[in-house]
Amino acid sequence: VTESSGPVAALVSVGNELLYGETVDTNAAWLARSLAALGLPVVRKYTVGDVRGEIREAVRAATAAADLVVVSGGLGPTSDDVTKEAVAELLGRELRLDRELVRALEERFRARGYATLPTPNVSQAEVPAGATVLRNPHGTAPGLVLEASGSLVVLLPGVPRELRGIFEGDLATALRERFAGRLAPVHHRVIHTTGVPESRLAELLEPRLPADMGPVKLAYLPDLRGVDLRLSAKGVSEQEAHTWFDRIEHAIEPVVREWRFEAPSGDAAEALLIALEREGKRLAVAESCTGGLVAKRLTDHPGASRVFAGGVVAYDNEVKVRELGVPETTIRREGAVSEPVARRMALGAAERFGVAAAVGVTGVAGPGGGTESKPVGTVWVGLALDGTSETRLLQLVGDRHSIRERAAQEAIASLLRLLRRSFPGS
Amino acid sequence: VTESSGPVAALVSVGNELLYGETVDTNAAWLARSLAALGLPVVRKYTVGDVRGEIREAVRAATAAADLVVVSGGLGPTSDDVTKEAVAELLGRELRLDRELVRALEERFRARGYATLPTPNVSQAEVPAGATVLRNPHGTAPGLVLEASGSLVVLLPGVPRELRGIFEGDLATALRERFAGRLAPVHHRVIHTTGVPESRLAELLEPRLPADMGPVKLAYLPDLRGVDLRLSAKGVSEQEAHTWFDRIEHAIEPVVREWRFEAPSGDAAEALLIALEREGKRLAVAESCTGGLVAKRLTDHPGASRVFAGGVVAYDNEVKVRELGVPETTIRREGAVSEPVARRMALGAAERFGVAAAVGVTGVAGPGGGTESKPVGTVWVGLALDGTSETRLLQLVGDRHSIRERAAQEAIASLLRLLRRSFPGS
Repeated sequence: VTESSGPVAALVSVGNELLYGETVDTNAAWLARSLAALGLPVVRKYTVGDVRGEIREAVRAATAAADLVVVSGGLGPTSDDVTKEAVAELLGRELRLDRELVRALEERFRARGYATLPTPNVSQAEVPAGATVLRNPHGTAPGLVLEASGSLVVLLPGVPRELRGIFEGDLATALRERFAGRLAPVHHRVIHTTGVPESRLAELLEPRLPADMGPVKLAYLPDLRGVDLRLSAKGVSEQEAHTWFDRIEHAIEPVVREWRFEAPSGDAAEALLIALEREGKRLAVAESCTGGLVAKRLTDHPGASRVFAGGVVAYDNEVKVRELGVPETTIRREGAVSEPVARRMALGAAERFGVAAAVGVTGVAGPGGGTESKPVGTVWVGLALDGTSETRLLQLVGDRHSIRERAAQEAIASLLRLLRRSFPGS
Repeated sequence: VTESSGPVAALVSVGNELLYGETVDTNAAWLARSLAALGLPVVRKYTVGDVRGEIREAVRAATAAADLVVVSGGLGPTSDDVTKEAVAELLGRELRLDRELVRALEERFRARGYATLPTPNVSQAEVPAGATVLRNPHGTAPGLVLEASGSLVVLLPGVPRELRGIFEGDLATALRERFAGRLAPVHHRVIHTTGVPESRLAELLEPRLPADMGPVKLAYLPDLRGVDLRLSAKGVSEQEAHTWFDRIEHAIEPVVREWRFEAPSGDAAEALLIALEREGKRLAVAESCTGGLVAKRLTDHPGASRVFAGGVVAYDNEVKVRELGVPETTIRREGAVSEPVARRMALGAAERFGVAAAVGVTGVAGPGGGTESKPVGTVWVGLALDGTSETRLLQLVGDRHSIRERAAQEAIASLLRLLRRSFPGS
């Protein structure tokens, strides 16, 4: 934040629902990432209610702090929506009806079966004098761009789809032109890992990093599913950035290899689908404590059907016996959360669905159901591949949600690693 | 925001990761809701990076605008964490080592096997002169409270679990004492609905609302799963608020009855589990396009096993035939996304798992796979209850994620409604 010499941006998010905590401001995070990628780092953010005075004051403070001010929200048709009025007041501009916008709105409503433009929507065709209008491909409120004593002020609707549509359409182009030659775009490379905690990864990685990192910064971005390593470089050409990225990646590769995976979506489930497809193998799942989450993760991805045959959610022990062939005596002797049950679930799923690969998951997700020998967080993962099988014991921490998410992720990542060991090319 | 006469709050969120868009600021929404419930509405929010000057400036602006300023983030042990220093500077307080905090930290680290307190953590025991220390049950950074010319400034760590633990522990009590007699707590009642769009609900509801709503405001909170109606009342006793809520709820009940459900978590899946348990019936699912999501939603809830037997994810058509008894000829003639297939999936699941109730879902989640007669978003839901069955056709809009979420929600809500019709008491 302090180091930037190029132009910088500030955000103003408008909406009572943001102050009431009814809505989490996902627009701000999205805008921050998108602006940083263009070379316009965000240095300040203000959130205010739908109140003219407060919007005016925040936009005034923002223009003093930044070259670009992006105001989002409060452009709707109802009387609550006062962003345009507030900014027009601040900059001393009159609001004028834009004939072209009126026509476009009329057309939009006619296509939806309205004879005339509803009165409240007429206000959406009003534009502050001198503003540039940005097309909104997904809604009725256009984006607006205004010059304000050296800063550029942009108004965007708060509906995420509309805001993103305008940004990726007209606005990105306009910003590149406006700040041409002054932008220092940030280049990125992300290395996805799973199965290793952030602190352990950092410990192993730091001694391997080149003493000279050049323009590159390394960030650790952890979540429930794993840790992303993000390399970023600013103020250099794309080619130079990638030369540095290659050098650093090469240095840390021996350390990250074990936990690393590649997938366009950044999801290990997609990496597993890709690896299985490459080997011409199909997959089935048998889930107890994750209760459908592993199957859901796999089918999040279009085209999963090429690899994923299906699964059994064996929540009941009886289902484990009848559908997956887990021997009743094993459950009685070892318990439903046990090594042989996980193994049998995986083998049973592979058999039942007639596929080469399968995962079985059984565990105690909590909050109840834990015992001294099998506390909450105890999870057994069974893996089947081409008739062979192996198992893993996990001891997970967190609430029910975290334990289920982590168990599903470990099951997916474990099969991916087994596949790689068995078929080193994949 | 404008109407408050009692004390008001402002938030300052500190952290480069918030400006970079790497982290969505969920703390701010949580704090806003929690403060509003205490009677301290948030009127302004500032987000700044880990930079002393910017933190100072934001806290100064916030104290000018509000009676309470809650600063979160930047209390960690590393050199990036400068919130405490910045606020101490602004208020002209020296930082002093708190002996008691040092002892507590030493103990904490000893329990984790450390012989001495790691040097970076010593800084976490430094406290601005005159500050009150708030216990952190979940971490090493305590909360701090400072008086600053009429405003109260509170510093909290940014880790959500730690922030919430301090707030719900020492802080809520301290705020109630500090602002005693001046607080106007907000009372709430939430009515959950699903299966009806916000605009349609508003249209039906508005004419039913009493002309005199007294102190009550009504908000519509829509998401992918449905619309919550939130009644809130401020400046009255809890008893008076609930008398008003009862009156309004009574007036709108005939309109919302069809779509309303009740569940402690606000999740219709939990309402379904409760209704089935009351009727002594068990449930199974058969999923194609939702790919495990319905099962996952049900097993999100502890105790689901009392009602939920299990499910089949029949992603492959072969699985629909072999595991659920869908006739191959039906799939060939009608297609996998069709009324008879959905019906057979539900009946097949009920039979296979030996339970009274079942849901089957088959559809086109997209982005590919749509045809002119069955475009993306076409979903058939089959319901089985005590040997009878019925089906519903959905035409959903949105991306793959939205279509899957909506299909799962509609499947769950449809079975809940069928159950209610069949057993009016449930």
